Amino acid sequence: MPGEQGETSKIRIAIVGSTGYGGVELIRLLQAHPLAEITSVISSSSAGTPISDGFPHLTDIIVQNLDGVNASEIAEKADVVFTATPSGVSSKLVPGLLEAGLKVIDLSGDYRIKDGETYEKWYKHPAPEQSYLEKAVYGLCEIFGEEVTDVDFVSNPGCYPTATLLGLIPAISAGWIDPKSIIIDAKSGVSGSGRGTSLTSHYAEINENFKAYKVNKHQHIPEIEQVLGQVTGEPVTVTFTTQLVPMTRGIMSTMYAQMNGVYNDEDFVELYRQYYKERPFVRVRDKGIWPATKEVYGSNYCDVGFAADARTGRVTIISVIDNIVKGAAGQAIQNLNLMMGWEENLGLGYTPVYP
Amino acid sequence: MPGEQGETSKIRIAIVGSTGYGGVELIRLLQAHPLAEITSVISSSSAGTPISDGFPHLTDIIVQNLDGVNASEIAEKADVVFTATPSGVSSKLVPGLLEAGLKVIDLSGDYRIKDGETYEKWYKHPAPEQSYLEKAVYGLCEIFGEEVTDVDFVSNPGCYPTATLLGLIPAISAGWIDPKSIIIDAKSGVSGSGRGTSLTSHYAEINENFKAYKVNKHQHIPEIEQVLGQVTGEPVTVTFTTQLVPMTRGIMSTMYAQMNGVYNDEDFVELYRQYYKERPFVRVRDKGIWPATKEVYGSNYCDVGFAADARTGRVTIISVIDNIVKGAAGQAIQNLNLMMGWEENLGLGYTPVYP
Amino acid sequence: MPGEQGETSKIRIAIVGSTGYGGVELIRLLQAHPLAEITSVISSSSAGTPISDGFPHLTDIIVQNLDGVNASEIAEKADVVFTATPSGVSSKLVPGLLEAGLKVIDLSGDYRIKDGETYEKWYKHPAPEQSYLEKAVYGLCEIFGEEVTDVDFVSNPGCYPTATLLGLIPAISAGWIDPKSIIIDAKSGVSGSGRGTSLTSHYAEINENFKAYKVNKHQHIPEIEQVLGQVTGEPVTVTFTTQLVPMTRGIMSTMYAQMNGVYNDEDFVELYRQYYKERPFVRVRDKGIWPATKEVYGSNYCDVGFAADARTGRVTIISVIDNIVKGAAGQAIQNLNLMMGWEENLGLGYTPVYP
Amino acid sequence: MPGEQGETSKIRIAIVGSTGYGGVELIRLLQAHPLAEITSVISSSSAGTPISDGFPHLTDIIVQNLDGVNASEIAEKADVVFTATPSGVSSKLVPGLLEAGLKVIDLSGDYRIKDGETYEKWYKHPAPEQSYLEKAVYGLCEIFGEEVTDVDFVSNPGCYPTATLLGLIPAISAGWIDPKSIIIDAKSGVSGSGRGTSLTSHYAEINENFKAYKVNKHQHIPEIEQVLGQVTGEPVTVTFTTQLVPMTRGIMSTMYAQMNGVYNDEDFVELYRQYYKERPFVRVRDKGIWPATKEVYGSNYCDVGFAADARTGRVTIISVIDNIVKGAAGQAIQNLNLMMGWEENLGLGYTPVYP
Repeated sequence: MPGEQGETSKIRIAIVGSTGYGGVELIRLLQAHPLAEITSVISSSSAGTPISDGFPHLTDIIVQNLDGVNASEIAEKADVVFTATPSGVSSKLVPGLLEAGLKVIDLSGDYRIKDGETYEKWYKHPAPEQSYLEKAVYGLCEIFGEEVTDVDFVSNPGCYPTATLLGLIPAISAGWIDPKSIIIDAKSGVSGSGRGTSLTSHYAEINENFKAYKVNKHQHIPEIEQVLGQVTGEPVTVTFTTQLVPMTRGIMSTMYAQMNGVYNDEDFVELYRQYYKERPFVRVRDKGIWPATKEVYGSNYCDVGFAADARTGRVTIISVIDNIVKGAAGQAIQNLNLMMGWEENLGLGYTPVYP
Repeated sequence: MPGEQGETSKIRIAIVGSTGYGGVELIRLLQAHPLAEITSVISSSSAGTPISDGFPHLTDIIVQNLDGVNASEIAEKADVVFTATPSGVSSKLVPGLLEAGLKVIDLSGDYRIKDGETYEKWYKHPAPEQSYLEKAVYGLCEIFGEEVTDVDFVSNPGCYPTATLLGLIPAISAGWIDPKSIIIDAKSGVSGSGRGTSLTSHYAEINENFKAYKVNKHQHIPEIEQVLGQVTGEPVTVTFTTQLVPMTRGIMSTMYAQMNGVYNDEDFVELYRQYYKERPFVRVRDKGIWPATKEVYGSNYCDVGFAADARTGRVTIISVIDNIVKGAAGQAIQNLNLMMGWEENLGLGYTPVYP
Repeated sequence: MPGEQGETSKIRIAIVGSTGYGGVELIRLLQAHPLAEITSVISSSSAGTPISDGFPHLTDIIVQNLDGVNASEIAEKADVVFTATPSGVSSKLVPGLLEAGLKVIDLSGDYRIKDGETYEKWYKHPAPEQSYLEKAVYGLCEIFGEEVTDVDFVSNPGCYPTATLLGLIPAISAGWIDPKSIIIDAKSGVSGSGRGTSLTSHYAEINENFKAYKVNKHQHIPEIEQVLGQVTGEPVTVTFTTQLVPMTRGIMSTMYAQMNGVYNDEDFVELYRQYYKERPFVRVRDKGIWPATKEVYGSNYCDVGFAADARTGRVTIISVIDNIVKGAAGQAIQNLNLMMGWEENLGLGYTPVYP
Repeated sequence: MPGEQGETSKIRIAIVGSTGYGGVELIRLLQAHPLAEITSVISSSSAGTPISDGFPHLTDIIVQNLDGVNASEIAEKADVVFTATPSGVSSKLVPGLLEAGLKVIDLSGDYRIKDGETYEKWYKHPAPEQSYLEKAVYGLCEIFGEEVTDVDFVSNPGCYPTATLLGLIPAISAGWIDPKSIIIDAKSGVSGSGRGTSLTSHYAEINENFKAYKVNKHQHIPEIEQVLGQVTGEPVTVTFTTQLVPMTRGIMSTMYAQMNGVYNDEDFVELYRQYYKERPFVRVRDKGIWPATKEVYGSNYCDVGFAADARTGRVTIISVIDNIVKGAAGQAIQNLNLMMGWEENLGLGYTPVYP
C-alpha cells in the first residue's frame, strides 16, 4: 500500500535485476514500505521499456521505464540499491556501486562464501575480490542482525540456508544435537530457479512430478557449513538433498540430527521460543504440529516444528519459508530496516496469503 | 501491515464466518487497513478456540479466541460487521445485526436478488424478508459506488457477476453490443466453493482436470441478468457456463456478444479506459493483450482485454479477478471505504503476488 | 504390453520426432499394439544417443539408439512412418518418405489445410506442394474413416479440431444448429504446445494461472472452418478462443450455437448416440452430466455432453479429449488401424488413468 | 486392452472396494490382462448402481452394476478376489472369503504386521485373528516372490514400504550400510489417502503446499521395521517422515544411511543391478542420475538412484513408485501372476504416462 506516509522522509531505492522473480518481489514489497520509495527499476536486458511489458501484473503500479545499469546514474537517483542479479554478475557490479556511495544489499550468492577457493569450487566461476568478500556482512537477521546495523554492504542469505539455519542454530547453540550427524532433506518450489526457461522449469515436466537434483552438490552447502562452523567453532559437514516440488513458492527444510541427551517436543518448543522471543518473523509451532509451506505464503515468516523421537534418539526439525520472501526479497528488506535503524518488521507485516 | 497509524481513530470491525475462506481473507486484508481494526472474529462452530487452530497461518497474528454469534455482543465490540456466511444463514442473521445498530456488509448471496421469487427459484430456499432486500444496496463499486455512500447495509456482489458485469457494462451502456446475444463462458478456481469438503473439492479429483458444472443453472445467473436489466432498461437473458480450473484462486469470464456496429480493439480499449478512468481497480489491457488470472492474484484488481473480430462481427471480452479479493473480501472492504467516505482504495493497494 | 503376439506378423513402424511429446506418446501406445512393432525411433537433433537420456521413463523399454532422418534408411527398417514433426518440417520431409515407398501418417499441421493460400495466411510460412496436399487424406476417423482405408498418406487432425468437430458435426449434419452462430471456447493443457521451452510453458508462470492466447488467431481455425464447410456445403466462420489451463493433458471445447428448433438435452443425447453408435471412442454422457478432461486421461476417448437451454434457444455442447492421445498419437494409431484394415480400436483400448 | 485372447482360459476376478482409488486402478489394469477377467465389481455402499455413476471414466468399460459384499455369491462368480478395503474392514471380511474357497489378495494393511500387539499399537484398532495373520504371505514380489507361488492368501505391501524396502534391502543385505542409521524422508501424492473427503485432501489446502504429517507415527513404520528385521536378523528402528506433495500420484522415498565401508555411486549401481537382474520392474539409474516420480507414472516400475558421499560417509538412496500401481493395484496383480504361476509382468507392461 504505497504512499500512505509523506514522501519527503523516504529513502530512495534502486533495484537491479528488476525483471527476475527476486526483483519483482522487491517491487511488490517495497511498494508498501512506509519509509522507502522505488526510484529506479533496472534491467540490463530490457532498459527503455515498461516493466509491465514483461510483467503485466505491474500495470498502473510501476509506470516508469526500466533503466540501464550505470553506477553513477543509480547513485543520482537512489540511496540504497538491491542487486537481484545472478551469481557471477553481482561480483562485477557491486564494487562500482559501493564506490559510487550507494548502500548495497546483494541477493546473489556472490558475497556469502568468505573463502574464495571454496566459492570457486562450488560456484564454478571466479570468486569476487577478497576485500569485498570481507566487507560484506552476512544478513541472516535473526542470528547476525546486530552486525547489520549501520553497515553499507549486506550479503543476503540463500533461500535454503535461511530455512535450514534458522531451524538448526538454536539446538546446535544449546548443544542439544550433534553437528556431525546433521542430514538435511530440503524441498523447494520452482520459482527458486528463476525465470529462465529450461526443461527443469517446463510445466509439463514438473507438474505431477517430484524430483531430486544436485544431491550433495548444491552451492548452498558451503554456505550452511560456513555458518554452522562459525556457530560451533569447528568445521561442520552436512548431507544435503535438494528436491523440486510441483509448486511455485515455498521451501521446506526437513532436518535430522542425533540428540546429545533426552529431550522431548516441549523442550524444543520452549528452547526455540526463548531463542527467538525478540524476533517477529520466527513462529514456533506447538508440540505435535508441523508447519506447511502455504502457511507462510507471500509473507516473511519462518515457521518451525519438531518431532523428538525417543525410539531412535533423533530429532526431526521442520522449517518452512516463502523462498522469494524470507528466502530473498523479504529478508533483504528486513536487512534494509536493520541497516537504517528502523523496526525490523517495518513494511513487512504481511499476513500469509491463504489459501 | 497493521498498526501503522494511531489506534484511536480506527473503526472496529467484527467478522462473522471467520473460519471460511472469505472470512480469513477479510482478516488478511483488514490487518493492513490503516483505519480499521478487527475487534471480533466470530464463528458459530468454533467459538472459544483460537482461530490459529484451524488456520495456522494466523499464528501470532490473531491471538484472541473466536467469539460466538450474538448480535448484542457484537454491537458492543464493533461498529461494522462483515457477514461472510453461507446463503440461507445471512438472511436469518442480518436483521438482528442491523437492529443492534451495526453497519452490515453481507458477503453471502442472500440480499443480491431483489425479487424474492427469483431468489427462491435459483437458490432453492426461502428468500429473506422483502424489507431487507429493499434496504440492501448492491455494492458493485465501480458501477453503483455512489449509492453506497452513507448507507448501513451493503450486499456485496458475487464473484462471477463482478468479473462479468465489469466486463460487459461499458459496452452495453454504449450500445455497442446486443444484450440478447450475450454468452458468458466463466472459469473459477476451487476456493470459490469454500472450505467445505466434498468430492468436487478433492485434490485428486480436481488436479489435472477441467470440468463444467451447473451449466445454465448457476445461482449467479439471475444476479447478472438483474443488473444487465437495470442497465439496459429491459429484461436480459444470458447463456452462462461455469467451469472449474485446477487452481486455488482466480476467475476468468470470457464473454461473447454480437457488435451493433464496426468497432475494433482500440475502440474498446478507449471506451473502457474512459469509462473507468476514475476507478483505481479496473485496468484495461492494450490492444492484442489479454489478462491472465495470475496477474491479479491476491489483489483487488479487475483486468480487462478485448478481441473484436471483423470476420464474425463479434467481440470477445475477457475479464479476470481474484475471486476471494475483488470477488469477495476485497470488494467488501472497498464498500466499507465507500460507506465511510474514505478513499476507495484505502488499505487495498496490494500489488498482485507474482509469480 | 508389448510382445504378446508373435513378432512375425507385425508391421514395422518408424517414428520421426521421437523426442517430442507426440513422439513419446506414439512410443507408449505402440509398445502395446499387437500388430505393430517400433523398429526405428528418429530424431534429427539427438541421433546416436539413447532416447532414455532425454526421457528416463523409457529406460529398459526402448533400448535402441535414436536414428537420424534419412528416407531410404527409414524405408529399409519400416513399413509405416509417423511424422511427429513441427509444422514446416513435415512439408519438407513427407514427399521423400512417400517416394521411398513408405506409408505416412503426419501429425504436423502441414497437410490439413487444402488451400495453400489459407495455409500460408494462418501458418505464416510456405505451404507444402499442392499435389501432396491433395493426396493427404484428413484422418478424422469418426467422420471420414472410410476414406482412410487403403490410402498411403494420412494427415492427422489437430487437437482442438478433433474435440470441436466431433462435438459439432452431428448437430450440424442434422440441421439442428445454425452454423453461422457457432462460438467455440476452447481450453488446453500445457503439453499442447510441446516440449520447447518458453515463458508460456514455464511452471511458475502457468501454475495457478488461467490465460487466453491467440484469441481468434489460432491456426486451427481454418481447419475447423474447412471441415464445417465440407459438412454444410457452404463457408462457415467461427469465433474461436484458445485458453491455457494449468494442467499437462486435456482439451475441453465448450461450444455454443443457436438451435434451429426446439430440442432438449435428451434429443441431443439420442442424436449423438445414434450418430456414433458404431464408433468405439465417442462416449455420450447422459442428460445433465458433462464430461471432464480427466475422465479421458491417457485414453483415446472423446466424451460429449449437452445443455440445451429453452430460455435462450441456445445449446451448449461440451467435448473433451486427451490432447496427446485422441488429439495426436492415439488418433494417429486409429488411422493406422483403418489404413491396415484392422479393427479401429486395436491396441487402443486403454482405460483412462483416474485419478 | 481387454479381450484380446480367448475368454475361456481366463480366471475370474472379483474386486471388493471397487469405488476406492485402489479398486478403480485394479479395474484399469485388469481390463488389459490377457488371462484375467473381471466378473464382479463390489461396493458395500453403492451396490445396485453402475460404477460409472461415481466414476464416469469407466463409462462403456464396466457396464455391469456394482454387487454387494457376500462371500458365497462372490465365490460363485469368481476364482480370485482382491480386497481393496480400508484397514479394519479386511480383517472382518477375509476369513469368510477364504473359507468360501476364494484366493484372496488383500490390499489393506490388516495382514502385514505379524505381531498383533504391534498392529494394535500403530493401527489403533483390534488386530485380525492370529491364524490368518500367519497364513498371509507378505507379497513384496522382488524380495519374497518365491513364497507367493501357489498360496491362497497374499497380503499386499503398503505403498511407502514398497518404495523404501526395494531401495534399502540390497544395500542392507550386502552389509554396506548400518541398519541403525537409517533415516527415511518419504513424500507422497494425495491419492495415497484415498477418496474420502477431508481438509487434508481439499484442493485449496493442498495445492501450492508441501506439508509433513504423522512424523514418526505413520502405521507403515512397523511394516518397514518388521521386514528389515527379517532381512538383518535383528530388530531395526527407523526414523520415518511422511510428507504430502501437491500431486495426485507418486511416492519418493529419500533414504539416508551410514556406509560401513568406502563405496561409490558405481558400486551401488552395480550392486542393485545385480540384485534385481531377474526382476522386470526395478530399474536402476546410472551414476549421477536420480529418478523422478513422473518417470514411473501409471506403471508398475520402481526406479532407484544413489548418491554416495565421501565427505560424510553417508549414502543417499532415492526410490520412486506410482503409489496406486506398484504401491497397490499393480503389485497386487504382480502377486496374482506369481500365485498363478504366470510370468511376473503379464498384463503389467505399461509404459509410464509421460508427460
